[in-house]
Amino acid sequence: MLRSRAVANTILVVGSLAYDDVQTPFERRRNVLGGAACYFAFAASLYGPVRLVGVIGDDFEQSDVERLTRKGVDVSGIERRPGRSFHWSGRYDYELGAAETLATDLGVFATWRPEIPAAFTDSDLVFLANIHPEIQLEVLEQVRGPKLVALDSMNLWIDTQREALSKVMSRVDVVSLNEGEVRQFGRTFSVLRGAREILALGPRALIVKRGEYGAVLFTKTGSFWAPAFPLEKIQDPTGAGDAFAGGLMGYLARCETPDDAHLRRAVIHGIVCASFAVERFSVEGIEQLTRDGAAERYRALREIVTIGAETVTQVDPFAAVIR
Amino acid sequence: MLRSRAVANTILVVGSLAYDDVQTPFERRRNVLGGAACYFAFAASLYGPVRLVGVIGDDFEQSDVERLTRKGVDVSGIERRPGRSFHWSGRYDYELGAAETLATDLGVFATWRPEIPAAFTDSDLVFLANIHPEIQLEVLEQVRGPKLVALDSMNLWIDTQREALSKVMSRVDVVSLNEGEVRQFGRTFSVLRGAREILALGPRALIVKRGEYGAVLFTKTGSFWAPAFPLEKIQDPTGAGDAFAGGLMGYLARCETPDDAHLRRAVIHGIVCASFAVERFSVEGIEQLTRDGAAERYRALREIVTIGAETVTQVDPFAAVIR
Repeated sequence: MLRSRAVANTILVVGSLAYDDVQTPFERRRNVLGGAACYFAFAASLYGPVRLVGVIGDDFEQSDVERLTRKGVDVSGIERRPGRSFHWSGRYDYELGAAETLATDLGVFATWRPEIPAAFTDSDLVFLANIHPEIQLEVLEQVRGPKLVALDSMNLWIDTQREALSKVMSRVDVVSLNEGEVRQFGRTFSVLRGAREILALGPRALIVKRGEYGAVLFTKTGSFWAPAFPLEKIQDPTGAGDAFAGGLMGYLARCETPDDAHLRRAVIHGIVCASFAVERFSVEGIEQLTRDGAAERYRALREIVTIGAETVTQVDPFAAVIR
Repeated sequence: MLRSRAVANTILVVGSLAYDDVQTPFERRRNVLGGAACYFAFAASLYGPVRLVGVIGDDFEQSDVERLTRKGVDVSGIERRPGRSFHWSGRYDYELGAAETLATDLGVFATWRPEIPAAFTDSDLVFLANIHPEIQLEVLEQVRGPKLVALDSMNLWIDTQREALSKVMSRVDVVSLNEGEVRQFGRTFSVLRGAREILALGPRALIVKRGEYGAVLFTKTGSFWAPAFPLEKIQDPTGAGDAFAGGLMGYLARCETPDDAHLRRAVIHGIVCASFAVERFSVEGIEQLTRDGAAERYRALREIVTIGAETVTQVDPFAAVIR
């Protein structure tokens, strides 16, 4: 059943815009557009209207801001300040799993406290990209009754800001972390135990990102295990998690009342967006993604995870010989 | 549609029976029942009649043979020879991924060339457990037109017997290898490329086992990606791959004419059997498994991988707002 409404729910993202230096065994790119909010916005803007709150320095190219506006992203929440933009430099080995950070220069991001423009405070969905959990809490205090809030975080905050992070996790609907972070938070090698501990804080759902092994959705009532989209070539894993969150939140923004079944499909959209992100350097893969491209890969992913319809007897294979 | 036949197809397994010493960070067990054919037989016997061809030494307890007969396994193909039985000793670290082999004493297995009893040559399904590929070929020459043959192998044979292994892979229906072995065979980090190379040899299907990340089925027409069954506690990963093969072949033995949809379900049964195997030391988990237990976990696994039914419009999320 579909409602004849032209516009999806609005999505607010608060987080970093950056320039990255990325090295892989095959290639090196310098000063390419990056940042969590940026990856997120390119992905989510495919699904609906996105509002971005972030900070940039003197060195940030206006043409890069325009790449976002071209996707319909409302950039009026991007603040330009004197100083350097966030710069990140990292390296990947052949496994293309986790990045080794070579240098982080926070620049103007270091002292920034986001102010949500009045016109953005009514946003329907809010994504708190990885940033100090106290700042995530401040953002939550500035928005008025969003329908759904999700957050990302990182090992640093689990180590140093466990209390603040627990507090903000208890106040959001969806927590998105990678597998190692869930283990770290739960102080356990068992992702199941870590997941249970995070869900006990209150969020409705936890999504565990597992890189080339996909993602898992945990809710109060069950779990959903999805593989990554199989790719033969990966150029740059940077931003995969944020592109994932963009696809996830983008899909949820198109749902009137997201239930657990919608969440499962949203995870698949997240995986689709992440797959496009990692196929090219920087944001290029996700910037060039079209709705047709995403829909096609969504269908392909559905195909490769579907066991197939069964009769009741086939589900119990011990009843008789199966035709 | 079901055929009213009392008995499933017969399954022949050829491979090792062994005593293992297994160490994990938490526990150590000595001289416990193991061996590829043994793990396979316990799993497959849940589904239908299994015939086992293997070799044991003087030290092999008759009571361990009886554990197999109690499951209905036809042990008349087990040859007892003077000497020691196959002994394997291995250690797992906290990740419980790959075993570190501490010692292998092949014993009577070293010089054994399997002879298939006349009564077994008409077996419907054949599983060639990990053994020298030339010996796998010899077994194939002793059976008469089986409906389906599957094989397992290992890094050693990929390194040293590539030609013979390629030959036997070209003559079976299903190849079952772990992820690292597929990469090794394809001389690539890309599992997709490795899989393509193996399928090009002729088998109808390749199954790539990925440990705690599940398994992938590759066929000429597509692929199927399934997660492992989520477990909070793993005691001993030994034999997981062979228990997997047992569930897989067991399910296929119950199918009249296995098609690609049956293969997908067979993979899920393999995963279910592997999950029981690793929950206990040695073969205990799979030995104690009941049909009800397997059917229950099969349904649970189906639940956690199912995206859910969708209308056509939901599959294209860009058409309208989704209710």
